[in-house]
Amino acid sequence: MTAQRLGQSQARRTPTLEGVKRAAKKIAAILPPTPLLPLEVEGRTIWCKAESLQPIGAFKIRGAWHRLSDLSDEERAAGVVAFSSGNHAQGIAWSARRLRISATIVMPADAPVAKMEATRAMGAQIVTYDRMTENREAIAARLAGERGAVLVPSFDDPWVVEGQGSAALEAAAQLRAMTGKSPTQLVVCCGGGGLASGCALALPDAKIVIVEPEGWDDFGESLRRGEIVPVGPNPPPTRCDALQTLRTSPLTFDILHDRGATGVSVSEAETAAAMRVAMTSLGLVLEPGGAVALAAVLSGKVGADDATVVTLSGRNVDPHIFASMIAA
Amino acid sequence: MTAQRLGQSQARRTPTLEGVKRAAKKIAAILPPTPLLPLEVEGRTIWCKAESLQPIGAFKIRGAWHRLSDLSDEERAAGVVAFSSGNHAQGIAWSARRLRISATIVMPADAPVAKMEATRAMGAQIVTYDRMTENREAIAARLAGERGAVLVPSFDDPWVVEGQGSAALEAAAQLRAMTGKSPTQLVVCCGGGGLASGCALALPDAKIVIVEPEGWDDFGESLRRGEIVPVGPNPPPTRCDALQTLRTSPLTFDILHDRGATGVSVSEAETAAAMRVAMTSLGLVLEPGGAVALAAVLSGKVGADDATVVTLSGRNVDPHIFASMIAA
Repeated sequence: MTAQRLGQSQARRTPTLEGVKRAAKKIAAILPPTPLLPLEVEGRTIWCKAESLQPIGAFKIRGAWHRLSDLSDEERAAGVVAFSSGNHAQGIAWSARRLRISATIVMPADAPVAKMEATRAMGAQIVTYDRMTENREAIAARLAGERGAVLVPSFDDPWVVEGQGSAALEAAAQLRAMTGKSPTQLVVCCGGGGLASGCALALPDAKIVIVEPEGWDDFGESLRRGEIVPVGPNPPPTRCDALQTLRTSPLTFDILHDRGATGVSVSEAETAAAMRVAMTSLGLVLEPGGAVALAAVLSGKVGADDATVVTLSGRNVDPHIFASMIAA
Repeated sequence: MTAQRLGQSQARRTPTLEGVKRAAKKIAAILPPTPLLPLEVEGRTIWCKAESLQPIGAFKIRGAWHRLSDLSDEERAAGVVAFSSGNHAQGIAWSARRLRISATIVMPADAPVAKMEATRAMGAQIVTYDRMTENREAIAARLAGERGAVLVPSFDDPWVVEGQGSAALEAAAQLRAMTGKSPTQLVVCCGGGGLASGCALALPDAKIVIVEPEGWDDFGESLRRGEIVPVGPNPPPTRCDALQTLRTSPLTFDILHDRGATGVSVSEAETAAAMRVAMTSLGLVLEPGGAVALAAVLSGKVGADDATVVTLSGRNVDPHIFASMIAA
């Protein structure tokens, strides 16, 4: 019944700015800050937070570390279970290895090979499922229940939200050090909204814009309607595997809705163009889902001032897909 | 006669560790440190200095800034002339724009499009030449003489050597902060040896290994023979445009020879493999010439311990060439 008890505890706890600050301190103790890189866009300088340079290649290491390092000795002994298309999986696997916790990850069978291999290489056990016919939450909950293990959702979890928000605190400190300004606007990629809601908590005075792939913009639509709606039937194929979330959670939705966050969506072509700019102007490899926030600014869908921070959230893309997208 | 006078002044001055330290302070005032990223290689952790993340995409910004910011008001008014396949060109153009100095760059007509465009976009005037039939040094010296401008060679210059060496000082400080260790070994890409000789000055106790493309390993051969020899006749085509130096200078040779530096060469296939590792394991775009030092370690040609620093020197590669090399 451990999983059940933890579930109730999570439902009671609301992520807070204090929690983001505590997460940021814990993360700064083990990971150097990722660079905040300036990029000139039509005469303005925007600031790109290169979370793609984290050891696992994505910001997800933050929430995973905050959650797992807060587990009790008893909980650590029972292990953790997570479900993820890949980046959360690697964050959990990395943190679990460092803390000597057993980790089982439920991943879609069509997850990028690079993400599966990296997760396995860090010692996690992988259980695959069919993205279109099986329910990953149910599989993960069943595994956790069987083992008495702690379930660590990829976004619907207060620790995970707080941990991801540490990226925004870190970026704000870097921007202030370099320019004396605080971020006025954060443009954030969005699947379930863990990063976006954490960043919103971290920077109470910044405007928040979430960015999703076209056809997968359920979170933006939910914000417009004022209630959670799922992705529509038969969503289009997308290279943004990290952002294929079918429906968000009240936890992240409430934070972003209360803050007046708005959403935009970008096309695959706009995403590919952003990947090329990140390559040629910043020297960064981005996975498609890691480039959508930049795509929103470069396409003009989101206006930018000189204190706009854009998250470049991940780099884990199979080389042949990257090659085809930048060469197009 | 300004150029002539400066030439004599350069011949008299020897680059020093004190000069490297002064350069490092000047550079730290305008550029954040580039990340020193850990990479696991066969059970060991090597440390990759990601100079590819500099604003111009290469370490050459260091030497250019140290040189140009030391010019007198009179010299600044007369402008500067440089010759370069691209990265030094961008370093000069970036520094000149920031200091409001007029810059003319002599570039080979077959330089990567990305490098030429970026150099022009920063306001420099470009003069092209044929790499196989014309002498870039002579063209640049003539232009400098006509204009009374200061000639800034890409490696045969004490300021440039000292400036590039600041990368090693920065890496050493980062490694000490993260591990408590000082670098035992530096593996450095080498064209004319500006970066390698500067790094050798910066870290008097580290072993220095220079890395060149196969068929362009004149510097390694010079070190073995104890005297400067040029690249052999009909060198092979190489994608490492940044390292196509036909002959080095006594300035850089003497520093590296006195230090007992050794040289290895790597194949195009080994370079491509290193570019793929940098992409998938570090999230970095590297140009071929920027990946040779990593290639030397990954191929086993250079042994590594846990305090080995490898320079990842640049990222400026045309996207279709990058795509073809990582997809192979």
